[in-house]
Amino acid sequence: MTWNVVVRACLTCALVTWAAPVTESAAHSAIPVEDGYDLWLRYRQLPNGPRLTEYRKTLTRVVADASSPTIDAASDELTRGLGGLLGNAITADRSVTSNGSIILGTPKSSPIVASLKLDAALKSAGNEGFVLRSTTVAGKQATVIAANSDVGVLYGAFDLLRRVQTLQSVSGLAVTSAPRIQVRMLDHWDNLNRTVERGYAGQSLWDWPNLPETLPERYRDYARANASIGINGAALTNVNANAKFLTPEYLTKIAALAGVFRPYGIKVYLTARFSAPIEIGGLTTADPLDSAVRVWWKDKADEIYRFVPDFGGFVVKANSEGQPGPQDYKRSHADGANMLADAVAPHGGIVMWRAFVYSNEVPTDRVRQAYDEFKPLDGQFRENVFIQVKNGALDFQPREPFHPLFGAMPKTPVMAEFQITKEYLGQDTHLVYLAPLFKEVLDADTYANGKGSTVGKVLDGSLQKQARTGITGVSNVGTDRNWTGSQFNQANWYAYGRLAWDHTLTSQTIADEWIRRTFTNNDRSVASIRSMMLTSREAVVNYMTPLGLAHIMATGHHYGPGPWVSNAGRPDWSPTYYHRADTLGIGFDRTSTGSNAVAQYFPPVRDRFAGNAIPDSVLLWFHRVGWNQKLKSGRTLWEELARHYYAGVDSVRSMRRTWDSVKGSIDSTRFAEVQDFLRIQEKEAIWWRDAAVQYFQTFSRQPIPSDLERPVHPLEFYRALRCPPVPPKPRCEAVY
Amino acid sequence: MTWNVVVRACLTCALVTWAAPVTESAAHSAIPVEDGYDLWLRYRQLPNGPRLTEYRKTLTRVVADASSPTIDAASDELTRGLGGLLGNAITADRSVTSNGSIILGTPKSSPIVASLKLDAALKSAGNEGFVLRSTTVAGKQATVIAANSDVGVLYGAFDLLRRVQTLQSVSGLAVTSAPRIQVRMLDHWDNLNRTVERGYAGQSLWDWPNLPETLPERYRDYARANASIGINGAALTNVNANAKFLTPEYLTKIAALAGVFRPYGIKVYLTARFSAPIEIGGLTTADPLDSAVRVWWKDKADEIYRFVPDFGGFVVKANSEGQPGPQDYKRSHADGANMLADAVAPHGGIVMWRAFVYSNEVPTDRVRQAYDEFKPLDGQFRENVFIQVKNGALDFQPREPFHPLFGAMPKTPVMAEFQITKEYLGQDTHLVYLAPLFKEVLDADTYANGKGSTVGKVLDGSLQKQARTGITGVSNVGTDRNWTGSQFNQANWYAYGRLAWDHTLTSQTIADEWIRRTFTNNDRSVASIRSMMLTSREAVVNYMTPLGLAHIMATGHHYGPGPWVSNAGRPDWSPTYYHRADTLGIGFDRTSTGSNAVAQYFPPVRDRFAGNAIPDSVLLWFHRVGWNQKLKSGRTLWEELARHYYAGVDSVRSMRRTWDSVKGSIDSTRFAEVQDFLRIQEKEAIWWRDAAVQYFQTFSRQPIPSDLERPVHPLEFYRALRCPPVPPKPRCEAVY
Repeated sequence: MTWNVVVRACLTCALVTWAAPVTESAAHSAIPVEDGYDLWLRYRQLPNGPRLTEYRKTLTRVVADASSPTIDAASDELTRGLGGLLGNAITADRSVTSNGSIILGTPKSSPIVASLKLDAALKSAGNEGFVLRSTTVAGKQATVIAANSDVGVLYGAFDLLRRVQTLQSVSGLAVTSAPRIQVRMLDHWDNLNRTVERGYAGQSLWDWPNLPETLPERYRDYARANASIGINGAALTNVNANAKFLTPEYLTKIAALAGVFRPYGIKVYLTARFSAPIEIGGLTTADPLDSAVRVWWKDKADEIYRFVPDFGGFVVKANSEGQPGPQDYKRSHADGANMLADAVAPHGGIVMWRAFVYSNEVPTDRVRQAYDEFKPLDGQFRENVFIQVKNGALDFQPREPFHPLFGAMPKTPVMAEFQITKEYLGQDTHLVYLAPLFKEVLDADTYANGKGSTVGKVLDGSLQKQARTGITGVSNVGTDRNWTGSQFNQANWYAYGRLAWDHTLTSQTIADEWIRRTFTNNDRSVASIRSMMLTSREAVVNYMTPLGLAHIMATGHHYGPGPWVSNAGRPDWSPTYYHRADTLGIGFDRTSTGSNAVAQYFPPVRDRFAGNAIPDSVLLWFHRVGWNQKLKSGRTLWEELARHYYAGVDSVRSMRRTWDSVKGSIDSTRFAEVQDFLRIQEKEAIWWRDAAVQYFQTFSRQPIPSDLERPVHPLEFYRALRCPPVPPKPRCEAVY
Repeated sequence: MTWNVVVRACLTCALVTWAAPVTESAAHSAIPVEDGYDLWLRYRQLPNGPRLTEYRKTLTRVVADASSPTIDAASDELTRGLGGLLGNAITADRSVTSNGSIILGTPKSSPIVASLKLDAALKSAGNEGFVLRSTTVAGKQATVIAANSDVGVLYGAFDLLRRVQTLQSVSGLAVTSAPRIQVRMLDHWDNLNRTVERGYAGQSLWDWPNLPETLPERYRDYARANASIGINGAALTNVNANAKFLTPEYLTKIAALAGVFRPYGIKVYLTARFSAPIEIGGLTTADPLDSAVRVWWKDKADEIYRFVPDFGGFVVKANSEGQPGPQDYKRSHADGANMLADAVAPHGGIVMWRAFVYSNEVPTDRVRQAYDEFKPLDGQFRENVFIQVKNGALDFQPREPFHPLFGAMPKTPVMAEFQITKEYLGQDTHLVYLAPLFKEVLDADTYANGKGSTVGKVLDGSLQKQARTGITGVSNVGTDRNWTGSQFNQANWYAYGRLAWDHTLTSQTIADEWIRRTFTNNDRSVASIRSMMLTSREAVVNYMTPLGLAHIMATGHHYGPGPWVSNAGRPDWSPTYYHRADTLGIGFDRTSTGSNAVAQYFPPVRDRFAGNAIPDSVLLWFHRVGWNQKLKSGRTLWEELARHYYAGVDSVRSMRRTWDSVKGSIDSTRFAEVQDFLRIQEKEAIWWRDAAVQYFQTFSRQPIPSDLERPVHPLEFYRALRCPPVPPKPRCEAVY
């Protein structure tokens, strides 16, 4: 019976039967090249040892006594994953007949699961969580994956696979896991012509011209990867939006994608171009209080839901960087958001309204603007509107203080927007593990309700009793074979998803998991790679923007240093606007003697940032500091600044040595690729260091400390470099 | 000893050891998905049967007693290929110790090969050819791959693999093979920003920003694929050229690519921007007779050869479509070409000067221009200059008569330029096997030296005793996983290479080989797929441009029908310029009563094209024909035209049924992809048919024959469709 399953399924693989023993040469041709396509869902056979023995005894068959597209996906994934990891045939069955069964299901549809009386545990699992239990069923040893929903079962299946991939015990399991945040999104800034704004991994995955006719397997693999880390929503289109995506022609294509994603629990969202009623609706206005406009959006929403019945809703960038919005009609952001919210509300949809706004007039301090505009609107939004707030008030810098809006809108669901694609952090080539950046924000204490009011608790709704909770990350995936432009950029997709599920996980835990699933279970190598990852974010801060500096990248493409740029279209796009260096000192005064942006924080935070207790890491974000002022270390600002830049380069050198040390425990292809990229990173860290230190030296008029290396090239060399912002990414000429 | 080789090599694959028995589920996770990446170098195990038994006995070890990068590549390919195909360990050895040895080498470097006395056969193999021999060495059965050069050995190794993949006997081998043409190129129209002009398969393979630091395995796989079909040159850059590629920064990157390609016998070529002395050289002129300009190019050539010692030479598009050239200085094409030829001559380089020119003034007949300009220059070029002539005088249409310059420049090496990328033939999605198009031209009789003066003989130098011979194809490869945008587009890369090696091969033979190597050896399926491929080119001619029509595609992107376009920048870019339909008739009079372009052909051809003997297939290319004029069939032109369009659609429908019939003998992934694309092709064939027939009906004022289906939409629907030429390819809105 179960044998039949294997035989039947194998008819399709008749052309690829294997001879034993498989030798080096056969293996060479047949084993998939390690190109990173598998991501962390890498199901190569585990090393021999007690764990493998345990798994082979404990996990032998998948038992599902009910079927649905999602339950089938869970069952398929376990069969495929465990089959590869254990090198054993995993059979599928409908009842428990022997030891080693993995039982899948919900109490509603599965009589076996219903019989197990997991009610208490399932209650804490909630709508999307799951329960893993080692137990005995019909006298046989079994592992149960139970949930209240099919997608919960799928998440549980991926969790079990994670445990096996990382060599954790699967005996005595008594796990209940539930996501802390409800809406866990990826935002794709993907355009209709398949370019990706701030994308560094090839073209957009969405092959619009060939949709809906063709649905390459890659769409499903994308959904598998997302579901495996708990992501449950994808906004497919760029926030700099194109109204054409809302036409029936494109809705047909979007519906086809939604059909692939649905079994994996991923809802599709779209960006709403605010002026769409004019551009594709034939109206003469997009005024959100105009009744024809309101009807148009209502009809459009109804139409979208006919194509995609579980459509998630809209993401909107309005009145920001030239995008149209309600202010074009002298209406508020609340007017605009509420109109769209009313259109999708009957269908259960939501609106994610971005707080990343700044007006066409140059403000005295750009970072003040989101707070100044949105804080007064708290309480004016429909209940299905989220305000989507970037992690910091500027724009995805290597380091920013957390955004002051977190905790400041208690009557509004505020969601965080992180950037997984490393626009300002070395894009495809630099190895920067972002979990520490995400965690720094999630763990930051807003003091909104007193001590312990972390951003994480704002987001998960526990602090301010929010009914709706959400988080999003700007995706880094594209058509590159390894999805993300580099092997290590995959870790940032992974880390984002894991933290969206549970923001209390540590960067270290997530790195450990990811390395084991992606590269190796060799403990020594895991420790080496983990240490490299954990230092990488501070490294990039040091060689790009130490001590609270920000936005001194070259203009437009944001690749490479450009601290000298002072003419970037408007003052508040120019690096000189941000660092404000002169012969007296450097930094942006955001205390009461300056823009007073610091006042946007709750008092204990405000006082800390405004006063002497401010950490060096954000010093120049809030303060102008004289070159000779002494910092906590006892060194002058100038010396400290220079030493931070040099420390950044040294960290990269150390990362290179660490990576070299794991040679042999990583496949040669990926090992070499990472090695090559680290070599580029070192060169570019030096580029950053030499350019920034020598540029700031023109103001400080002090020498580089004598114990440090001399710059490789003079400042003028670096200033003369050009990196024209051609797609797919900047091309920097004669950098080295 | 040989065992050691296996063990050592296997250290790198320690993480991927296999358990037996491999079952369905393990296989599911471990067997590479059939995504087409392997191309025709697909080394899955062959079906059990007498051939496999024969191969396992006859081909057990690779014996090379000399080493070089190219010999090692040949040895590696055999080890990998036979290992996969036979499912046996193929060992490597330095001497013949048992039956089953495959002996590799040249008599110069290999004592074993030298001892075999293959002098006579090797003489006819020439510099790049090879000899395959079944023989006995030291009393043991052996197969010899011998050549006069290492690359000949590599070609022989690929030839042996081809025989094994296609289940031909490898006993009693007595083969000598030599390429008929010396320079066998691929031209990449790849830009610095990784877009590809007329590319429909993702981005450019050349990752300029990350070169030379990273050299992904894909570069080597590209070289393997080319070498396997005998291609020995690659022009890396677009003919619409960028001078920056000639700067040291880019030469470093190009040198890195050349290093990867070198062991595979592939030389690197670059396009020369004629105005480079001004743009990157700081000169004020690019006049080819100016001594400073001549010195600049000479120095530049010397510099390039310092980076790439075996650099092949330049490809030049000058004074064509806005490109700079010698005529800007009132100099001739010969002046321009000879200057560059003198610069590369000391290094053994060549210049490929394109004859695809037309002036800024609108000519009376654009197709006359190449002949009119170049024919008078015959004899004025340096011996290392090729004139590169497109297959037809217009521009890579579904069908054109062969170019009249073939045979018309007996004192000049003329090379043919084919377009492998299907700019005018459905781009990525339409299944069109181009070998019949290539063959139609190669087999066309120019009558230059009387009957039998085929284009093939012009190209291979046998007709006019050319010392240099060459051929090129505009590549269709990009970063898409399947390399070419669709599975079947791979066949066109393959067919081009095979014909470049031997233009006497038939389309049928090549299709047969390709199908067996790429998809299956199931005879019935091979026959079905082959028949589909062989009809596909006539199908596209019928549904796009039957009876000698040409260039009625939509303007700019050339995707979809645009016969009504009359304002495409200049008259000779407009479809109406080419079809000239009015109420009296249709067609371009190129006889003596018209442009007299027909006079550019040698008399027997000229007379045939000018008179009643003209084949229907090119009728409207040369003649204006009244709507009611009777053709050979006895039907009127109008009816014949309509029926051809309908026949095109019917052929596609038949192709769909044929493909459906091979289900089960093709892996499901590629099967589904092709099925999806054929569905698109049918829709678009109908789009073409309905648009063209109804448009021409506005002139013929006659009904569509009553036995034919009615159009799906009226003409106005099709005229209203817009396909803006956005990259990566046109997006046609609301086509269906």
